[in-house]
Amino acid sequence: MATSLGPGDAGLITRRAWHVMQSGAMWCYPVRRKGGRSHALGIAERTGMDIPEDALALVFPMTHDSEILARAWARAADKIVPMLQSGRDVAFLVEGDASTFSTFTYLARYVQSLDADIEVEIIAGVPSFNAAAASASFPLAETDDTIAIVPAGYGLQELDKLLPHFDTLVLLKVKPLLDSVIDWLAENNLLTDAVFVEKAGAPEERMIHDVASLKGKKVNYLSLMLIRNPNRQRGEVIRGCKKKDT
Amino acid sequence: MATSLGPGDAGLITRRAWHVMQSGAMWCYPVRRKGGRSHALGIAERTGMDIPEDALALVFPMTHDSEILARAWARAADKIVPMLQSGRDVAFLVEGDASTFSTFTYLARYVQSLDADIEVEIIAGVPSFNAAAASASFPLAETDDTIAIVPAGYGLQELDKLLPHFDTLVLLKVKPLLDSVIDWLAENNLLTDAVFVEKAGAPEERMIHDVASLKGKKVNYLSLMLIRNPNRQRGEVIRGCKKKDT
Repeated sequence: MATSLGPGDAGLITRRAWHVMQSGAMWCYPVRRKGGRSHALGIAERTGMDIPEDALALVFPMTHDSEILARAWARAADKIVPMLQSGRDVAFLVEGDASTFSTFTYLARYVQSLDADIEVEIIAGVPSFNAAAASASFPLAETDDTIAIVPAGYGLQELDKLLPHFDTLVLLKVKPLLDSVIDWLAENNLLTDAVFVEKAGAPEERMIHDVASLKGKKVNYLSLMLIRNPNRQRGEVIRGCKKKDT
Repeated sequence: MATSLGPGDAGLITRRAWHVMQSGAMWCYPVRRKGGRSHALGIAERTGMDIPEDALALVFPMTHDSEILARAWARAADKIVPMLQSGRDVAFLVEGDASTFSTFTYLARYVQSLDADIEVEIIAGVPSFNAAAASASFPLAETDDTIAIVPAGYGLQELDKLLPHFDTLVLLKVKPLLDSVIDWLAENNLLTDAVFVEKAGAPEERMIHDVASLKGKKVNYLSLMLIRNPNRQRGEVIRGCKKKDT
Protein backbone atom coordinates (compact mmCIF):
# COMPACT_ATOMS: atom_id res chain seq x y z
CA MET A 1 0.00 0.00 0.00
CA ALA A 2 1.11 3.55 -0.58
CA THR A 3 1.85 5.25 2.69
CA SER A 4 2.05 8.99 2.14
CA LEU A 5 4.27 10.57 4.77
CA GLY A 6 3.52 14.22 4.06
CA PRO A 7 6.03 16.92 3.24
CA GLY A 8 8.73 16.12 5.77
CA ASP A 9 7.64 17.22 9.22
CA ALA A 10 6.96 14.13 11.35
CA GLY A 11 3.95 15.95 12.83
CA LEU A 12 2.32 16.07 9.40
CA ILE A 13 2.23 12.28 9.05
CA THR A 14 -1.35 11.06 9.25
CA ARG A 15 -2.42 8.69 12.00
CA ARG A 16 -3.24 5.98 9.45
CA ALA A 17 0.24 6.18 7.88
CA TRP A 18 1.83 6.07 11.33
CA HIS A 19 -0.21 3.01 12.21
CA VAL A 20 0.74 1.20 8.99
CA MET A 21 4.43 1.94 9.54
CA GLN A 22 4.23 0.20 12.90
CA SER A 23 2.06 -2.68 11.71
CA GLY A 24 4.85 -5.04 10.71
CA ALA A 25 4.35 -4.29 7.02
CA MET A 26 7.52 -4.51 4.94
CA TRP A 27 8.81 -0.99 4.30
CA CYS A 28 9.88 -0.02 0.80
CA TYR A 29 11.19 3.37 -0.15
CA PRO A 30 12.38 4.98 -3.37
CA VAL A 31 15.99 6.00 -4.04
CA ARG A 32 17.45 7.61 -7.15
CA ARG A 33 20.43 5.23 -7.25
CA LYS A 34 21.77 2.27 -5.32
CA GLY A 35 22.93 3.43 -1.90
CA GLY A 36 21.36 6.86 -2.41
CA ARG A 37 19.39 8.76 0.19
CA SER A 38 15.61 8.60 0.25
CA HIS A 39 13.53 11.62 1.22
CA ALA A 40 10.70 9.34 2.27
CA LEU A 41 12.95 7.24 4.52
CA GLY A 42 14.42 10.46 5.92
CA ILE A 43 10.94 11.51 7.06
CA ALA A 44 10.47 8.13 8.73
CA GLU A 45 13.87 8.44 10.43
CA ARG A 46 12.94 11.82 11.86
CA THR A 47 9.96 10.29 13.64
CA GLY A 48 12.35 8.48 15.95
CA MET A 49 10.77 5.18 14.94
CA ASP A 50 13.08 2.19 14.57
CA ILE A 51 13.74 1.53 10.90
CA PRO A 52 12.97 -2.15 10.25
CA GLU A 53 16.10 -4.08 9.32
CA ASP A 54 14.46 -5.52 6.24
CA ALA A 55 13.33 -2.12 4.87
CA LEU A 56 13.93 -2.30 1.14
CA ALA A 57 15.31 0.45 -1.11
CA LEU A 58 13.83 0.42 -4.60
CA VAL A 59 15.85 2.20 -7.28
CA PHE A 60 13.98 4.61 -9.54
CA PRO A 61 16.53 6.59 -11.55
CA MET A 62 15.83 10.28 -12.11
CA THR A 63 15.43 10.20 -15.83
CA HIS A 64 12.78 10.97 -18.40
CA ASP A 65 13.77 7.98 -20.52
CA SER A 66 10.59 5.93 -20.43
CA GLU A 67 12.40 2.65 -21.21
CA ILE A 68 14.79 3.01 -18.29
CA LEU A 69 11.86 3.94 -16.05
CA ALA A 70 9.75 1.01 -17.21
CA ARG A 71 12.62 -1.36 -16.40
CA ALA A 72 12.91 0.16 -12.92
CA TRP A 73 9.19 -0.23 -12.20
CA ALA A 74 9.27 -3.82 -13.43
CA ARG A 75 12.31 -4.64 -11.31
CA ALA A 76 10.71 -3.10 -8.21
CA ALA A 77 7.45 -4.93 -8.83
CA ASP A 78 9.35 -8.22 -9.21
CA LYS A 79 10.83 -7.68 -5.75
CA ILE A 80 7.67 -6.87 -3.88
CA VAL A 81 5.07 -9.06 -5.58
CA PRO A 82 6.39 -12.34 -4.04
CA MET A 83 6.26 -10.69 -0.63
CA LEU A 84 2.65 -9.64 -1.17
CA GLN A 85 1.76 -13.10 -2.49
CA SER A 86 3.23 -14.65 0.67
CA GLY A 87 0.68 -12.66 2.64
CA ARG A 88 2.84 -9.88 4.03
CA ASP A 89 1.73 -6.29 3.54
CA VAL A 90 4.13 -3.91 1.89
CA ALA A 91 4.17 -0.23 2.86
CA PHE A 92 5.66 1.88 0.08
CA LEU A 93 6.78 5.10 1.75
CA VAL A 94 5.95 8.19 -0.27
CA GLU A 95 7.00 11.77 0.41
CA GLY A 96 4.08 14.21 0.28
CA ASP A 97 0.90 12.71 -1.18
CA ALA A 98 0.95 9.45 -3.15
CA SER A 99 -1.36 10.81 -5.88
CA THR A 100 0.60 14.02 -6.42
CA PHE A 101 3.84 13.80 -8.41
CA SER A 102 4.72 10.48 -6.93
CA THR A 103 6.35 7.39 -8.29
CA PHE A 104 3.75 5.16 -6.71
CA THR A 105 1.15 5.19 -9.48
CA TYR A 106 3.54 3.55 -11.92
CA LEU A 107 4.65 0.96 -9.40
CA ALA A 108 1.06 0.05 -8.51
CA ARG A 109 0.29 -0.50 -12.20
CA TYR A 110 3.18 -2.91 -12.61
CA VAL A 111 2.34 -4.77 -9.42
CA GLN A 112 -1.26 -5.25 -10.49
CA SER A 113 -0.24 -6.26 -14.00
CA LEU A 114 1.74 -9.11 -12.43
CA ASP A 115 -1.05 -10.15 -10.09
CA ALA A 116 -4.47 -8.59 -10.46
CA ASP A 117 -5.57 -10.02 -7.10
CA ILE A 118 -3.20 -7.80 -5.16
CA GLU A 119 -5.10 -5.06 -3.37
CA VAL A 120 -3.63 -1.59 -3.45
CA GLU A 121 -4.50 0.90 -0.74
CA ILE A 122 -3.43 4.49 -1.12
CA ILE A 123 -3.20 6.55 2.06
CA ALA A 124 -3.44 10.23 1.16
CA GLY A 125 -0.98 12.69 2.65
CA VAL A 126 -0.31 16.41 2.96
CA PRO A 127 1.27 17.68 -0.30
CA SER A 128 4.39 19.81 0.03
CA PHE A 129 2.73 22.94 -1.36
CA ASN A 130 -0.03 22.78 1.22
CA ALA A 131 2.64 22.67 3.91
CA ALA A 132 4.45 25.56 2.26
CA ALA A 133 1.22 27.58 2.13
CA ALA A 134 0.59 26.90 5.81
CA SER A 135 4.09 27.99 6.89
CA ALA A 136 3.82 31.12 4.75
CA SER A 137 0.24 31.93 5.89
CA PHE A 138 -0.44 32.01 2.17
CA PRO A 139 -4.05 31.16 1.28
CA LEU A 140 -3.94 28.78 -1.69
CA ALA A 141 -7.62 29.36 -2.32
CA GLU A 142 -10.48 31.33 -0.88
CA THR A 143 -14.12 30.95 -1.94
CA ASP A 144 -14.55 30.40 -5.69
CA ASP A 145 -10.82 30.79 -6.32
CA THR A 146 -8.98 28.87 -9.00
CA ILE A 147 -5.56 27.21 -8.56
CA ALA A 148 -3.05 26.05 -11.18
CA ILE A 149 -0.17 23.77 -10.26
CA VAL A 150 2.40 23.93 -13.01
CA PRO A 151 6.06 22.99 -13.42
CA ALA A 152 7.88 26.22 -14.29
CA GLY A 153 9.64 24.45 -17.14
CA TYR A 154 6.77 25.00 -19.58
CA GLY A 155 8.01 28.55 -19.77
CA LEU A 156 6.83 32.11 -19.36
CA GLN A 157 4.60 32.17 -22.43
CA GLU A 158 2.57 29.40 -20.84
CA LEU A 159 2.37 31.43 -17.62
CA ASP A 160 1.15 34.42 -19.63
CA LYS A 161 -1.68 32.28 -20.96
CA LEU A 162 -2.65 30.86 -17.58
CA LEU A 163 -2.38 33.99 -15.44
CA PRO A 164 -5.72 35.59 -16.43
CA HIS A 165 -7.57 32.42 -15.38
CA PHE A 166 -6.09 31.79 -11.94
CA ASP A 167 -6.11 33.33 -8.48
CA THR A 168 -3.18 31.19 -7.40
CA LEU A 169 -0.29 29.72 -9.32
CA VAL A 170 1.84 27.06 -7.69
CA LEU A 171 5.02 27.04 -9.74
CA LEU A 172 7.07 23.89 -9.24
CA LYS A 173 10.76 23.33 -9.99
CA VAL A 174 11.49 27.03 -10.49
CA LYS A 175 15.27 26.63 -10.24
CA PRO A 176 16.26 26.55 -13.93
CA LEU A 177 14.07 29.58 -14.74
CA LEU A 178 14.32 31.50 -11.50
CA ASP A 179 15.70 34.76 -12.87
CA SER A 180 13.25 34.96 -15.72
CA VAL A 181 10.35 34.06 -13.42
CA ILE A 182 11.38 36.96 -11.17
CA ASP A 183 11.41 39.30 -14.21
CA TRP A 184 8.01 37.95 -15.23
CA LEU A 185 6.63 38.63 -11.74
CA ALA A 186 7.96 42.19 -11.90
CA GLU A 187 6.39 42.77 -15.34
CA ASN A 188 3.06 41.55 -14.01
CA ASN A 189 3.30 43.53 -10.79
CA LEU A 190 3.26 40.37 -8.74
CA LEU A 191 6.56 40.59 -6.88
CA THR A 192 4.86 41.25 -3.55
CA ASP A 193 2.29 38.53 -4.18
CA ALA A 194 4.81 35.71 -4.44
CA VAL A 195 6.63 33.54 -1.94
CA PHE A 196 9.60 31.33 -2.72
CA VAL A 197 9.90 28.07 -0.79
CA GLU A 198 12.86 25.72 -0.90
CA LYS A 199 12.52 22.16 0.40
CA ALA A 200 8.97 22.74 1.59
CA GLY A 201 8.21 20.78 4.72
CA ALA A 202 11.76 19.52 5.27
CA PRO A 203 13.80 20.62 8.31
CA GLU A 204 15.93 22.77 5.97
CA GLU A 205 12.85 24.55 4.58
CA ARG A 206 13.70 28.08 3.50
CA MET A 207 11.08 30.69 2.76
CA ILE A 208 11.82 33.97 0.99
CA HIS A 209 9.13 36.64 0.81
CA ASP A 210 11.34 39.16 -0.97
CA VAL A 211 11.63 37.04 -4.09
CA ALA A 212 13.43 39.77 -6.05
CA SER A 213 16.38 39.29 -3.69
CA LEU A 214 16.90 35.83 -5.21
CA LYS A 215 17.91 37.21 -8.60
CA GLY A 216 21.19 35.60 -9.66
CA LYS A 217 21.28 33.41 -6.57
CA LYS A 218 21.65 29.63 -6.52
CA VAL A 219 18.72 27.74 -5.10
CA ASN A 220 17.95 24.09 -4.46
CA TYR A 221 16.34 21.93 -7.11
CA LEU A 222 13.36 21.33 -4.79
CA SER A 223 12.03 24.87 -4.99
CA LEU A 224 8.60 26.22 -5.66
CA MET A 225 6.83 29.55 -5.79
CA LEU A 226 3.36 30.39 -4.56
CA ILE A 227 1.90 33.31 -6.51
CA ARG A 228 -1.36 35.13 -5.80
CA ASN A 229 -2.93 36.96 -8.69
CA PRO A 230 -5.04 39.80 -7.28
CA ASN A 231 -5.96 40.92 -10.80
CA ARG A 232 -7.91 37.97 -12.08
CA GLN A 233 -11.01 39.12 -13.93
CA ARG A 234 -13.72 36.84 -12.68
CA GLY A 235 -16.55 35.79 -14.86
CA GLU A 236 -19.94 35.24 -13.33
CA VAL A 237 -20.16 32.12 -11.23
CA ILE A 238 -23.09 29.81 -11.80
CA ARG A 239 -24.23 28.80 -8.37
CA GLY A 240 -26.45 25.96 -7.32
CA CYS A 241 -29.06 25.87 -4.63
CA LYS A 242 -27.21 25.11 -1.46
CA LYS A 243 -28.49 23.06 1.37
CA LYS A 244 -29.16 25.36 4.28
CA ASP A 245 -27.28 23.27 6.75
CA THR A 246 -24.31 21.26 5.65
CA MET B 1 -4.09 28.15 15.54
CA ALA B 2 -5.67 26.51 12.52
CA THR B 3 -5.93 22.80 13.05
CA SER B 4 -6.62 21.11 9.71
CA LEU B 5 -8.43 17.84 10.26
CA GLY B 6 -8.22 16.45 6.74
CA PRO B 7 -11.10 15.32 4.58
CA GLY B 8 -13.16 13.43 7.14
CA ASP B 9 -11.53 10.08 7.86
CA ALA B 10 -10.14 10.13 11.41
CA GLY B 11 -7.09 8.21 10.11
CA LEU B 12 -6.20 11.15 7.86
CA ILE B 13 -5.78 13.57 10.77
CA THR B 14 -2.12 14.47 11.18
CA ARG B 15 -0.29 13.66 14.38
CA ARG B 16 0.29 17.35 15.08
CA ALA B 17 -3.44 18.17 14.76
CA TRP B 18 -4.29 15.23 17.02
CA HIS B 19 -1.82 16.46 19.60
CA VAL B 20 -3.19 20.01 19.53
CA MET B 21 -6.75 18.75 19.96
CA GLN B 22 -5.70 17.01 23.15
CA SER B 23 -3.53 19.83 24.43
CA GLY B 24 -6.20 21.69 26.37
CA ALA B 25 -6.54 24.34 23.69
CA MET B 26 -10.01 25.82 23.36
CA TRP B 27 -11.77 24.23 20.38
CA CYS B 28 -13.59 26.45 17.92
CA TYR B 29 -15.42 25.17 14.88
CA PRO B 30 -17.38 26.79 12.07
CA VAL B 31 -21.12 26.38 11.59
CA ARG B 32 -23.33 27.88 8.88
CA ARG B 33 -26.03 28.99 11.34
CA LYS B 34 -26.64 28.90 15.08
CA GLY B 35 -27.23 25.33 16.20
CA GLY B 36 -26.15 23.98 12.80
CA ARG B 37 -23.90 21.00 12.26
CA SER B 38 -20.18 21.44 11.69
CA HIS B 39 -18.27 19.17 9.32
CA ALA B 40 -15.08 19.89 11.19
CA LEU B 41 -16.60 18.99 14.56
CA GLY B 42 -18.09 15.86 12.97
CA ILE B 43 -14.58 14.72 12.04
CA ALA B 44 -13.44 15.31 15.62
CA GLU B 45 -16.46 13.37 16.94
CA ARG B 46 -15.62 10.38 14.75
CA THR B 47 -12.20 10.11 16.40
CA GLY B 48 -13.90 8.97 19.59
CA MET B 49 -12.20 11.83 21.43
CA ASP B 50 -14.23 13.56 24.16
CA ILE B 51 -15.52 16.87 22.85
CA PRO B 52 -14.52 19.56 25.36
CA GLU B 53 -17.56 21.09 27.05
CA ASP B 54 -16.44 24.59 26.27
CA ALA B 55 -15.95 23.92 22.53
CA LEU B 56 -17.25 27.01 20.77
CA ALA B 57 -19.32 27.17 17.58
CA LEU B 58 -18.57 30.20 15.43
CA VAL B 59 -21.25 31.19 12.94
CA PHE B 60 -20.11 31.88 9.38
CA PRO B 61 -23.21 32.16 7.18
CA MET B 62 -23.03 30.61 3.72
CA THR B 63 -23.38 33.75 1.70
CA HIS B 64 -21.38 35.71 -0.82
CA ASP B 65 -22.47 39.03 0.69
CA SER B 66 -19.15 40.47 1.79
CA GLU B 67 -20.70 42.74 4.42
CA ILE B 68 -22.50 39.88 6.15
CA LEU B 69 -19.31 37.85 6.00
CA ALA B 70 -17.17 40.66 7.39
CA ARG B 71 -19.56 41.02 10.33
CA ALA B 72 -19.32 37.29 10.99
CA TRP B 73 -15.50 37.32 10.96
CA ALA B 74 -15.45 40.32 13.26
CA ARG B 75 -17.90 38.70 15.69
CA ALA B 76 -15.88 35.48 15.76
CA ALA B 77 -12.63 37.35 16.30
CA ASP B 78 -14.23 39.31 19.18
CA LYS B 79 -15.03 36.02 20.87
CA ILE B 80 -11.66 34.36 20.59
CA VAL B 81 -9.25 37.28 20.97
CA PRO B 82 -9.90 37.71 24.73
CA MET B 83 -9.25 34.00 25.18
CA LEU B 84 -5.96 34.25 23.33
CA GLN B 85 -5.00 37.36 25.29
CA SER B 86 -5.67 35.49 28.53
CA GLY B 87 -2.98 33.04 27.46
CA ARG B 88 -5.09 30.10 26.36
CA ASP B 89 -4.47 28.59 22.93
CA VAL B 90 -7.38 28.36 20.56
CA ALA B 91 -7.60 25.49 18.08
CA PHE B 92 -9.82 26.42 15.16
CA LEU B 93 -10.91 23.12 13.63
CA VAL B 94 -10.82 23.13 9.85
CA GLU B 95 -12.07 20.46 7.47
CA GLY B 96 -9.50 19.48 4.83
CA ASP B 97 -6.55 21.87 4.66
CA ALA B 98 -6.63 25.31 6.28
CA SER B 99 -5.05 27.03 3.25
CA THR B 100 -7.41 25.47 0.71
CA PHE B 101 -10.94 26.89 0.44
CA SER B 102 -11.15 27.44 4.14
CA THR B 103 -12.70 30.14 6.25
CA PHE B 104 -9.63 30.35 8.44
CA THR B 105 -7.64 32.89 6.43
CA TYR B 106 -10.30 35.57 6.92
CA LEU B 107 -10.62 34.83 10.61
CA ALA B 108 -6.85 34.99 11.15
CA ARG B 109 -6.75 38.41 9.45
CA TYR B 110 -9.42 39.78 11.77
CA VAL B 111 -7.79 38.32 14.83
CA GLN B 112 -4.44 39.84 13.97
CA SER B 113 -6.03 43.18 13.11
CA LEU B 114 -7.36 43.27 16.68
CA ASP B 115 -4.07 42.25 18.24
CA ALA B 116 -0.97 42.05 16.09
CA ASP B 117 0.91 40.21 18.84
CA ILE B 118 -1.23 37.12 18.51
CA GLU B 119 0.70 34.31 16.86
CA VAL B 120 -1.10 32.26 14.28
CA GLU B 121 0.04 28.73 13.52
CA ILE B 122 -1.45 26.90 10.57
CA ILE B 123 -1.26 23.12 10.65
CA ALA B 124 -1.58 21.80 7.11
CA GLY B 125 -3.94 18.92 6.37
CA VAL B 126 -4.93 16.53 3.61
CA PRO B 127 -7.24 18.32 1.13
CA SER B 128 -10.44 16.50 0.16
CA PHE B 129 -9.44 16.08 -3.48
CA ASN B 130 -6.22 14.33 -2.51
CA ALA B 131 -8.27 11.91 -0.44
CA ALA B 132 -10.67 11.45 -3.36
CA ALA B 133 -7.76 10.77 -5.71
CA ALA B 134 -6.35 8.19 -3.29
CA SER B 135 -9.66 6.32 -2.93
CA ALA B 136 -10.14 6.36 -6.69
CA SER B 137 -6.52 5.35 -7.45
CA PHE B 138 -6.59 8.42 -9.64
CA PRO B 139 -3.16 10.01 -10.14
CA LEU B 140 -3.58 13.76 -9.76
CA ALA B 141 -0.17 14.35 -11.29
CA GLU B 142 2.69 12.36 -12.67
CA THR B 143 6.07 13.82 -13.65
CA ASP B 144 5.80 17.25 -15.30
CA ASP B 145 1.99 17.16 -15.23
CA THR B 146 -0.13 20.25 -14.73
CA ILE B 147 -3.20 20.46 -12.48
CA ALA B 148 -6.03 22.99 -12.43
CA ILE B 149 -8.43 23.21 -9.49
CA VAL B 150 -11.48 25.12 -10.61
CA PRO B 151 -15.04 25.59 -9.32
CA ALA B 152 -17.32 24.30 -12.08
CA GLY B 153 -19.43 27.45 -11.80
CA TYR B 154 -17.17 29.44 -14.14
CA GLY B 155 -18.79 27.48 -16.91
CA LEU B 156 -17.92 25.26 -19.84
CA GLN B 157 -16.37 27.98 -21.98
CA GLU B 158 -13.78 28.45 -19.26
CA LEU B 159 -13.15 24.70 -19.23
CA ASP B 160 -12.68 24.79 -23.01
CA LYS B 161 -9.96 27.38 -22.52
CA LEU B 162 -8.21 25.51 -19.73
CA LEU B 163 -8.36 21.97 -21.10
CA PRO B 164 -5.47 22.23 -23.59
CA HIS B 165 -3.14 23.34 -20.80
CA PHE B 166 -3.82 20.72 -18.14
CA ASP B 167 -3.29 17.01 -17.56
CA THR B 168 -5.70 17.01 -14.65
CA LEU B 169 -8.75 19.11 -13.90
CA VAL B 170 -10.23 19.05 -10.41
CA LEU B 171 -13.72 20.40 -10.88
CA LEU B 172 -15.30 21.55 -7.63
CA LYS B 173 -18.98 22.09 -6.84
CA VAL B 174 -20.17 20.35 -9.99
CA LYS B 175 -23.76 19.97 -8.79
CA PRO B 176 -25.45 22.94 -10.52
CA LEU B 177 -23.80 22.14 -13.86
CA LEU B 178 -23.61 18.37 -13.64
CA ASP B 179 -25.57 17.52 -16.78
CA SER B 180 -23.77 20.00 -18.96
CA VAL B 181 -20.38 18.92 -17.57
CA ILE B 182 -21.26 15.33 -18.54
CA ASP B 183 -22.13 16.51 -22.08
CA TRP B 184 -18.88 18.47 -22.19
CA LEU B 185 -16.91 15.38 -21.15
CA ALA B 186 -18.63 13.37 -23.89
CA GLU B 187 -17.84 16.02 -26.52
CA ASN B 188 -14.20 15.98 -25.45
CA ASN B 189 -14.00 12.19 -25.32
CA LEU B 190 -13.22 12.29 -21.63
CA LEU B 191 -16.10 10.29 -20.15
CA THR B 192 -13.86 7.35 -19.25
CA ASP B 193 -11.18 9.68 -17.85
CA ALA B 194 -13.40 11.21 -15.19
CA VAL B 195 -14.46 10.18 -11.70
CA PHE B 196 -17.27 11.74 -9.72
CA VAL B 197 -16.83 11.97 -5.96
CA GLU B 198 -19.50 13.06 -3.51
CA LYS B 199 -18.54 14.04 0.06
CA ALA B 200 -14.90 13.11 -0.49
CA GLY B 201 -13.35 11.71 2.66
CA ALA B 202 -16.58 11.60 4.68
CA PRO B 203 -18.08 8.28 5.80
CA GLU B 204 -20.84 8.76 3.20
CA GLU B 205 -18.30 9.23 0.39
CA ARG B 206 -19.72 8.04 -2.93
CA MET B 207 -17.57 7.45 -5.98
CA ILE B 208 -18.98 6.99 -9.47
CA HIS B 209 -16.68 5.92 -12.29
CA ASP B 210 -19.44 5.73 -14.88
CA VAL B 211 -20.11 9.45 -14.74
CA ALA B 212 -22.55 9.35 -17.69
CA SER B 213 -24.91 7.38 -15.45
CA LEU B 214 -25.35 10.51 -13.32
CA LYS B 215 -27.15 12.40 -16.08
CA GLY B 216 -30.36 13.83 -14.68
CA LYS B 217 -29.62 12.53 -11.18
CA LYS B 218 -29.59 14.57 -7.99
CA VAL B 219 -26.23 14.78 -6.26
CA ASN B 220 -24.99 16.37 -3.08
CA TYR B 221 -23.71 19.93 -3.04
CA LEU B 222 -20.29 18.69 -1.90
CA SER B 223 -19.40 16.99 -5.17
CA LEU B 224 -16.33 17.13 -7.32
CA MET B 225 -14.98 15.55 -10.46
CA LEU B 226 -11.45 14.45 -11.18
CA ILE B 227 -10.72 14.56 -14.90
CA ARG B 228 -7.58 13.29 -16.66
CA ASN B 229 -6.81 14.80 -20.02
CA PRO B 230 -4.78 12.27 -22.00
CA ASN B 231 -4.69 14.64 -25.01
CA ARG B 232 -2.73 17.56 -23.64
CA GLN B 233 -0.20 18.77 -26.18
CA ARG B 234 2.94 19.32 -24.19
CA GLY B 235 5.38 21.98 -25.05
CA GLU B 236 9.04 21.39 -24.43
CA VAL B 237 10.00 21.42 -20.78
CA ILE B 238 12.98 23.48 -19.75
CA ARG B 239 14.86 21.35 -17.30
CA GLY B 240 17.54 22.31 -14.84
CA CYS B 241 20.57 20.40 -13.84
CA LYS B 242 19.43 18.02 -11.19
CA LYS B 243 21.44 16.92 -8.24
CA LYS B 244 22.39 13.30 -8.79
CA ASP B 245 21.29 12.21 -5.38
CA THR B 246 18.35 13.87 -3.71
